[in-house]
Amino acid sequence: MPTDPAAITSERSVVLQLNSTPAVQAAVGGLNQGSGPRVVPGRSIPVPESVSESFQRTIAMPYRDSEWKLDPPDAAGWRQAVAGLAAITIPAIEQMQSQLGVNVSETSIAGVPVFDVTPPTVRPENAGRVLVNTHGGGYVFNPGRASLLEAVVIAASCGIRVLAVDYRMPPDHPFPAALDDAFAVWQAVVDGQPAGTVGLCGGSSGGGLALATVLRAQQAGVALPAALAIQTPWADLAEVGDSLRTNEWLDSILVSYSAAPQRAARLYAAGHDLGDPLISPLRADLTGFPPTMLITGTRDLFLSLTVLVHRKLRRAGVPAELHVVEGASHFQYFINPFASESQDIFTEMRLFLDRTLAR
Amino acid sequence: MPTDPAAITSERSVVLQLNSTPAVQAAVGGLNQGSGPRVVPGRSIPVPESVSESFQRTIAMPYRDSEWKLDPPDAAGWRQAVAGLAAITIPAIEQMQSQLGVNVSETSIAGVPVFDVTPPTVRPENAGRVLVNTHGGGYVFNPGRASLLEAVVIAASCGIRVLAVDYRMPPDHPFPAALDDAFAVWQAVVDGQPAGTVGLCGGSSGGGLALATVLRAQQAGVALPAALAIQTPWADLAEVGDSLRTNEWLDSILVSYSAAPQRAARLYAAGHDLGDPLISPLRADLTGFPPTMLITGTRDLFLSLTVLVHRKLRRAGVPAELHVVEGASHFQYFINPFASESQDIFTEMRLFLDRTLAR
Repeated sequence: MPTDPAAITSERSVVLQLNSTPAVQAAVGGLNQGSGPRVVPGRSIPVPESVSESFQRTIAMPYRDSEWKLDPPDAAGWRQAVAGLAAITIPAIEQMQSQLGVNVSETSIAGVPVFDVTPPTVRPENAGRVLVNTHGGGYVFNPGRASLLEAVVIAASCGIRVLAVDYRMPPDHPFPAALDDAFAVWQAVVDGQPAGTVGLCGGSSGGGLALATVLRAQQAGVALPAALAIQTPWADLAEVGDSLRTNEWLDSILVSYSAAPQRAARLYAAGHDLGDPLISPLRADLTGFPPTMLITGTRDLFLSLTVLVHRKLRRAGVPAELHVVEGASHFQYFINPFASESQDIFTEMRLFLDRTLAR
Repeated sequence: MPTDPAAITSERSVVLQLNSTPAVQAAVGGLNQGSGPRVVPGRSIPVPESVSESFQRTIAMPYRDSEWKLDPPDAAGWRQAVAGLAAITIPAIEQMQSQLGVNVSETSIAGVPVFDVTPPTVRPENAGRVLVNTHGGGYVFNPGRASLLEAVVIAASCGIRVLAVDYRMPPDHPFPAALDDAFAVWQAVVDGQPAGTVGLCGGSSGGGLALATVLRAQQAGVALPAALAIQTPWADLAEVGDSLRTNEWLDSILVSYSAAPQRAARLYAAGHDLGDPLISPLRADLTGFPPTMLITGTRDLFLSLTVLVHRKLRRAGVPAELHVVEGASHFQYFINPFASESQDIFTEMRLFLDRTLAR
């Protein structure tokens, strides 16, 4: 039963003054006297002062209506939505690329289009190293050069060469096309150089895809990455994790799982079981995984997924480390990579890669 | 301006059906079209299915009205509230102690009362090791045997001897009495055995107090702990951290910072500057701190404080690791230490101590 939006809008005056006074404490306490779901009143949550002013401005940004609410009626509608978002994203990425002095050239590996992304200066310790990237975008968005935000920022921040896989996506190529492409590139890269010098990184859907690529490599007896850097992974597509509810409306990037993410999950799986570990690697046995770093934010819709992957890796004996960015929504440190919080987390990634990759 | 509680109660029918339908998405999206605070509608947040059934029952538990709302009018009122809570807590701890086979004896170190807490079996690697514990309770609650929950659970889970400091507290002994006592015990313990074999642990206010004790030891040139195990630290008493707002009403232990925590902060500081690093060690230079593990939960009111301490330690070059328990409110894994999530996190603590303490 849909709620009348007017009823919510008319609540705004209540929402905006709902500070925790004794009267409010009595009322909300009364609603939570029994066991079960937690009743949380409507609130206006201020921009936190516990982050830098630069990151405060990023946290304060409004929902991005070009993404979170998308609900295309059919394949043609999805293609149009993907192209529309790419038209916004690509100029922003090109500006970032130019600002950071990163070079991008197009190539192909194992028949899959790949971007070869090199920073203005490769750090000496990274001279022979390379990082394969599986980009985010809900397995639907960010084709071609729209995929490059992560690769550009990571290449520049860590001073390392990145090979960004431009894998196939739905509506034309659902699961397992993306995984087939990512694995084909992975296999070719570790055929060509010692696996100890190669890392794998990915965020959001690309984080789930990176985990699935390691699973596929394990199954095929192919060398694993020496380091796995995962940002806020979409590690289970079947609506898993407490933060999908607790951070709903707080995460200004994903906003609500019931909007675009749920639709993207169905589009990617295309009738396959969402519980398949190659679609939802949180359900896989993660024994034998390489050293892994995980990054998320306190307002991230995928905070729980990140935490659950971390715990599962640790229980499997994998050296896995977790880093959480105060106040950050899903992937938000990539949107403002210049904030001190973002610089801090990219420094962690650089040091992690240096600890785990061979020279 | 206090909100009329009747207005909130009457919203319940709206709150309970506020799923993320297109109509709701349009309404909430409209409220978040500008930069600034995030407007989050009232919701009923279900108990997550992403944790064990045992921990689901713990998460589902109602607010504990004996603690979070306390607002005594004067010192006599505080003494009565503290005694009232202890009368509930002590029998529960004694039952836990008996169930786990933990032995507790009373002693004193440097003139400070201390409980010597020993597990039924000390693990062989912990034979010469000891863990000093500064208990939680907002610097006000849990005097005497009411302090023993952490020490009993940790001693049994990690198979290690714990010395639990029964430090002085307000209203009779505000800051810096607790710190003076904790430091006096610390100094005496490391006078008596190699500091490499001694760890320090504490949660909530006890986590802040443990951090402050390390600062005091640094200032005094006294040996530091070889390992620091901190649970969800109250590392800043001046209302710092985004999760104080984002997890308000979701955390079923602390519930709302504006209730008991804020009052306890004022009572402890007793006119001292809340920004004093010995009261709010998040503000201190943490360079030179020992290897540290930090634990929090996704619903914890102090999620942000834990994350901020972790980041600050890492930036200072300290080997610090972060562990987050899915769905957990403040300190909630101590309330049900038998859930698999709790066992998992106590295993982490045992392994951390074994990695960092000398034999």
